[in-house]
Amino acid sequence: MNKSQKSFRPKARVPKGLRDMSAGMVRAEERMLARIREVYERYGFDPLETSAFEYADALGKFLPDEDRPNEGVFSFQDDDEQWLALRYDLTAPLARYVAENYDALPKPFRRYQTGPVWRNEKPGPGRFRQFTQFDADTVAAPGVAADAEMCMMGADCLEALGIPRGSYRIRANNRKVLDGLLERIGIAGEPGSTTYMTVLRAIDKYDRLGRKGVELLLGPGRKDESGDFTKGAGLSPSQITAVVDYVESGVGEGASDRKLVLDGWRNVVGESAIGREGLDELAEMDALFTAAGYGLDRIEFNSWIVRGLGYYTGPVFESDLLFEVKDESGNPVRFGSVGSGGRYDGLVERFKGVKVPATGFSIGVSRLQAALELLGKLDVEDVLAPVVVLTLDAENMAGYQSMVSELRAAGIRAELYLGGSGMKAQLKYADKRGAPIAVIEGEDERMKGEVTLKDLILGSEMSKEIEDNAAWREGQPAQVAVPRARLVEEVMAMLARHRSVRGHHG
Amino acid sequence: MNKSQKSFRPKARVPKGLRDMSAGMVRAEERMLARIREVYERYGFDPLETSAFEYADALGKFLPDEDRPNEGVFSFQDDDEQWLALRYDLTAPLARYVAENYDALPKPFRRYQTGPVWRNEKPGPGRFRQFTQFDADTVAAPGVAADAEMCMMGADCLEALGIPRGSYRIRANNRKVLDGLLERIGIAGEPGSTTYMTVLRAIDKYDRLGRKGVELLLGPGRKDESGDFTKGAGLSPSQITAVVDYVESGVGEGASDRKLVLDGWRNVVGESAIGREGLDELAEMDALFTAAGYGLDRIEFNSWIVRGLGYYTGPVFESDLLFEVKDESGNPVRFGSVGSGGRYDGLVERFKGVKVPATGFSIGVSRLQAALELLGKLDVEDVLAPVVVLTLDAENMAGYQSMVSELRAAGIRAELYLGGSGMKAQLKYADKRGAPIAVIEGEDERMKGEVTLKDLILGSEMSKEIEDNAAWREGQPAQVAVPRARLVEEVMAMLARHRSVRGHHG
Repeated sequence: MNKSQKSFRPKARVPKGLRDMSAGMVRAEERMLARIREVYERYGFDPLETSAFEYADALGKFLPDEDRPNEGVFSFQDDDEQWLALRYDLTAPLARYVAENYDALPKPFRRYQTGPVWRNEKPGPGRFRQFTQFDADTVAAPGVAADAEMCMMGADCLEALGIPRGSYRIRANNRKVLDGLLERIGIAGEPGSTTYMTVLRAIDKYDRLGRKGVELLLGPGRKDESGDFTKGAGLSPSQITAVVDYVESGVGEGASDRKLVLDGWRNVVGESAIGREGLDELAEMDALFTAAGYGLDRIEFNSWIVRGLGYYTGPVFESDLLFEVKDESGNPVRFGSVGSGGRYDGLVERFKGVKVPATGFSIGVSRLQAALELLGKLDVEDVLAPVVVLTLDAENMAGYQSMVSELRAAGIRAELYLGGSGMKAQLKYADKRGAPIAVIEGEDERMKGEVTLKDLILGSEMSKEIEDNAAWREGQPAQVAVPRARLVEEVMAMLARHRSVRGHHG
Repeated sequence: MNKSQKSFRPKARVPKGLRDMSAGMVRAEERMLARIREVYERYGFDPLETSAFEYADALGKFLPDEDRPNEGVFSFQDDDEQWLALRYDLTAPLARYVAENYDALPKPFRRYQTGPVWRNEKPGPGRFRQFTQFDADTVAAPGVAADAEMCMMGADCLEALGIPRGSYRIRANNRKVLDGLLERIGIAGEPGSTTYMTVLRAIDKYDRLGRKGVELLLGPGRKDESGDFTKGAGLSPSQITAVVDYVESGVGEGASDRKLVLDGWRNVVGESAIGREGLDELAEMDALFTAAGYGLDRIEFNSWIVRGLGYYTGPVFESDLLFEVKDESGNPVRFGSVGSGGRYDGLVERFKGVKVPATGFSIGVSRLQAALELLGKLDVEDVLAPVVVLTLDAENMAGYQSMVSELRAAGIRAELYLGGSGMKAQLKYADKRGAPIAVIEGEDERMKGEVTLKDLILGSEMSKEIEDNAAWREGQPAQVAVPRARLVEEVMAMLARHRSVRGHHG
């Protein structure tokens, strides 16, 4: 390091909108990924991994916020002047992969992929610029059996993650029903047009803004609390009523059964061919759900699920958590969607000029993890902290090293204390680590061929109960001297006792 | 998608220097990471995860190629004009994390981290711009017991990955020995100075260039085959001889024992205090290795291991694979280092202005995976492809769905054929997927309440053996009709037979 570097002292700070994940969070995420992976594998999906960035032109712009087409991604230029961008989801890289390897792939092609994605957006509380998704997609599958499978797999994933049936709902709809409605009420505008997208996004906000807000967004526009104005779709009053009536037709916890919902939507689409096709597809999905035993307690049809992304072309679905919980300040938190997906036929078309029917489901792992944490349902792997072998005598490091090596060879998590402090600080370190046992060999012990095992878990429990500190110190019931030669057996026995206690409690 | 987007058709291509990892590669990497994780955990390390990018000033410039300080990383500007850069290793983010959270951490602080890192370098065969590392570091550990532990843990990792003892070697040295040599032969230049770094990098190339090349790099400079000239360190002939003699003092497969190597280096460092300190540290490490049973078949001292990075300050080490293998074209490939590390005291100092002693070990997972693959030692998880339920009759999708749901509920990987083709194409698909069984229910079977199970593994084996194609087709010994109600049991029994066969072979 040269002198000029030494004189500049940067501030150590995590970048805006990013975060560090500590051991507990990393282990919890690993466990979640393993459980989702198990479900995806059972459904016949195989893993694929693409790199973190793509050529910007290949990635395309499919973010919800199409008002700002050049924002939302982190991009940079390669030395050959080509623009690269960090992936903002796992679907766009899949489209590139499929287009690049189309002939070699089995078709239909089922793949899953997990990993971080990045959004160049304004961060907020619980809203990070890097987060983990876990996607499954089926490419070149024309029928809605593929979409139905996504919905059932989403339900299976949530249950595998410990969310009880009844506490979540997979909510499905079909873009074609909306298309049919718009056709019936005389709104021109093919999917992807400005009017279409404005209507879509207005419906998508029903959950948050209610009937009044959606009416404004469908009509003249809406000014929010901060005074920002969102342009409206400019629909006529009767058109607005038709759309909002439809949106409210499938709402409510006690929703009627899926067939009745579809019956109600017959009037919504009227004579529209595309609308009727949408209803037929949903009816086929309903039959598949029923055949597989997925009732209304797992999957419902819901009119206000439309998904804001422009590229969906058929069935769309969302997995919502239904419970309300309080955050740390006692305010109620509704989680809403923790996973979503739908059918898209145009992603590969961008490259190949032909439509390739595809459907997929994406779980927002980071978001789901935050929800499970608030619910107290986050399944933290019960990893015991390591046994700490104190290093009280610098001349005897080799002896301490032997102990720790013997413990590790027996499969016990163990470490040497590697700092430069005395016994008191070493025990404090072991406590801070959450170590179950400290192994102590001072000169006295060594002379006698013994080691002292200090049971830190028992010790910390007893110290809470015992009032008389002096008696506690004298008795030292939580530590025991054992022959050095029996170190491994005695440590194992002590750990086994804690494991059985943990088993009883947990 | 608007019209201007439709008319532009980007080429689907993976960016320069990146790659897609197919199912087998992803599973193999997962398996490797799990095995390394198991060893790191056993040594008492806990996971940490930082995000993919950092503020560029916090990341600093610690790449080997310090001649081009502004190259080597992918960087981009945030909307507040601050520069961000993708991490090029996992050590620099650790330094930032430790500096930011110093007071709250237990000290010593042991953490492991894995994930991709990115280098903005010229890609080449087997040389990618994104690759996976798996690091373990101990921060605030002043003694070389921490370094010794890294070496032993490195050996344990390689063996956990299936590399037999004797086929790899952990090679350790100490920068202080080199410092002592330079002091003895009168070369001024503190660590980090241009001369020091030039000498370091010259030694680092001994493996590739041999004595002659290193002599040129230590002296007047060297022109390579392409005509590029590398400036030399400008040492005198006697200085050059001293350095090269030292480099060659610890070379050779049949290296003498660690104590003898250290004895030989006493003359190298002469009266230099720093040099002697380096030898004492290595002697202490030797004692720890011996106490833990790590002999010369696992860890050796080696004079030409110096590591090119400027930030190392004490012990340095490398894990080398010793076998030679042929690549696909039959050319011999030497793998060299698949993991390395050392002691560094200055990384956190950049932020905090005080030295914090630290040491770490980093496994180049992608590089190691490539090596294991060439050796045929890559442990690919034996994941069976899914059972494929053919969908021969569009009217009966619900019935097929029931079958696949029953199979999945029994924990069997299974999928519906979701394409739009006929029976022949569906069986071809099942073959391409490597499916063990195709489940067939046509009208005939349905009338009889049966399904046909086609054993595709047995079928493909038999078709190799049977000459008489007509006889084969008539006999169809690899398929069997079973009652629909016994679908799950019969599939399980068929799979179990294959598993036991696999067990015998593998």
